[in-house]
Amino acid sequence: LTALLVEQILQGNRRAIARQISRLENNQAEALSLLAELYPHTGQAHLIGLTGPPGAGKSTLVNQMAKIFRRDGKTVAILSIDPTSPFTGGALLGDRIRLTDLAGDPGVFVRSMATRGSLGGLARAAANATKVFDAAGYEIILIETVGVGQDEVEIARLAHSVVVIETPGFGDEVQAIKAGVLEIADVFVVNKADREGADRTVAALSMMLELGEPGPAKTAFHHGRLLEMTPPVPASRPETKWRPPIYRTIATTGEGVAEVVQAVVRHRAQQIASGAWQVQERRRLGFEIQQILQERLLANCLAKLSLTRLNQVLDDVAARQLDPYQAVETLLAVAEAPANGIEK
Amino acid sequence: LTALLVEQILQGNRRAIARQISRLENNQAEALSLLAELYPHTGQAHLIGLTGPPGAGKSTLVNQMAKIFRRDGKTVAILSIDPTSPFTGGALLGDRIRLTDLAGDPGVFVRSMATRGSLGGLARAAANATKVFDAAGYEIILIETVGVGQDEVEIARLAHSVVVIETPGFGDEVQAIKAGVLEIADVFVVNKADREGADRTVAALSMMLELGEPGPAKTAFHHGRLLEMTPPVPASRPETKWRPPIYRTIATTGEGVAEVVQAVVRHRAQQIASGAWQVQERRRLGFEIQQILQERLLANCLAKLSLTRLNQVLDDVAARQLDPYQAVETLLAVAEAPANGIEK
Repeated sequence: LTALLVEQILQGNRRAIARQISRLENNQAEALSLLAELYPHTGQAHLIGLTGPPGAGKSTLVNQMAKIFRRDGKTVAILSIDPTSPFTGGALLGDRIRLTDLAGDPGVFVRSMATRGSLGGLARAAANATKVFDAAGYEIILIETVGVGQDEVEIARLAHSVVVIETPGFGDEVQAIKAGVLEIADVFVVNKADREGADRTVAALSMMLELGEPGPAKTAFHHGRLLEMTPPVPASRPETKWRPPIYRTIATTGEGVAEVVQAVVRHRAQQIASGAWQVQERRRLGFEIQQILQERLLANCLAKLSLTRLNQVLDDVAARQLDPYQAVETLLAVAEAPANGIEK
Repeated sequence: LTALLVEQILQGNRRAIARQISRLENNQAEALSLLAELYPHTGQAHLIGLTGPPGAGKSTLVNQMAKIFRRDGKTVAILSIDPTSPFTGGALLGDRIRLTDLAGDPGVFVRSMATRGSLGGLARAAANATKVFDAAGYEIILIETVGVGQDEVEIARLAHSVVVIETPGFGDEVQAIKAGVLEIADVFVVNKADREGADRTVAALSMMLELGEPGPAKTAFHHGRLLEMTPPVPASRPETKWRPPIYRTIATTGEGVAEVVQAVVRHRAQQIASGAWQVQERRRLGFEIQQILQERLLANCLAKLSLTRLNQVLDDVAARQLDPYQAVETLLAVAEAPANGIEK
């Protein structure tokens, strides 16, 4: 049965893809083992992340980019991620808008994901979904995410190329400058470029790019802790500096979108040629391994501790008899005691 | 020397406080052991989180609230957290604005923190800083954070009472509704209430509160994984439902701010009376313990693995010969092998 589902996904069967992604979202054990079978078939797709504040026109831009990629004969998967709660309806709205344009095209697959529980869980589910698309043969995977801050940084880690979308008005307020987001950008888009203030926004972005020295900061952001402990990949070909270009678009009419698509394609080619692609790929995978490792370690440790013990430690901390660090030492000592079976 | 520093902090020595917080920010080992000595003296302060989008007027509101608390004779610490990168200057700007008002008042301590590395690290440093303030005798700790999404949810976990600040215009766009933030709110503030659209914003918030059923969702948000495994605290006094009130303020003139302060004080009293305070306190501490435990487990595990091994596994994953989940199994097997010393 598993073999059949793997076969169906590799052949691009839409129902099989949708089903597998849902199961991964629910973190089902069989889904993870099936992922292992799909994994050898991944690594072909170009993962493009798109991020920007609510109302910047992300969905429309993603739509237009998908159409251009389709015209070039590429198959496209769109993963729309909403780290806010399900009842916003944002993700659903995105789907509805897109359906009018791309519905019925067998070369396009649209999937929304809303948060369920932790952000870490969402990033994991998204990473797993991209693997299913990749194995199913989708050449372009557009990952769209709402939000400002660490949310999108986490999700941007999934992507090979990151497009950051702003609108006129951005840059007027110093507080609105989200440096973390600037540092992850490979391509900037000022959408709604027909609105007043577009020039100022482009100028503000250019200035910040010059001030910000994105190179090293970007590295730090993409750096999983696992990788801090591994030596750098032999840098026979030094990581060529890519200077993020800034484009103006009017996504509703499609104006300027072709240039954005070209820039993203150029980014990929340049990264592969310089060797930066492989370095980045190792970072991405190292980060993913670290996240999974961390969750497994915690689950294994908690499984060795009795509820009585956990409650007792929590009581002591609440009573200020233990501090949280001492509490952790206590729990580790019990969990790691060699003679210790599972506490009852 | 340590005993002296502890004594100084407990007496409220400002230089000692500032120094200890800096050392905690850098995660210095001695700072953590000193924290253990401070911890028994904590648990007295009321931690109030304030959050909202950039430009909502958070700093000004925090300022005004601090002045009112001072008038009531309370000592106040302000922790201003900017999860975006250091070069935004946002945190610094906040300090400068505040200094004109509260500088020279020995009953007020203002401290900014910008991101360094991971968000988890920032939330930890912030949690530790509040303990120093608490032990030093600050009765009110105002924790101000910028951002939308998971960032502020993490930081709001630190607080006993959470004030969510919005401005007119909010509610006009369905996408702007950040349900995650709504769910953590104990008090809503519509600031800049003299601007057009304030009524609509208040109405939108009221409606969302009715639709959103914040009760259970809030619980889920505040739920660390550690606590999912512990039984609920004996609920002899059931957790009384607190319905988040909505206030209008003009922070620049101070209008309406006294009502916000009263609501926050009332929230604390009601939570203590209903027993919800203690439940929440256990949740907060359980979450903190879980975070520290997770970091320690990862560090311990990585310490048992050689760089050669880590690189080899990463190579295999990059070559698609292992999937990330299998890679984790491999690493765990090596790290947990009983005969295994540290790989070289």
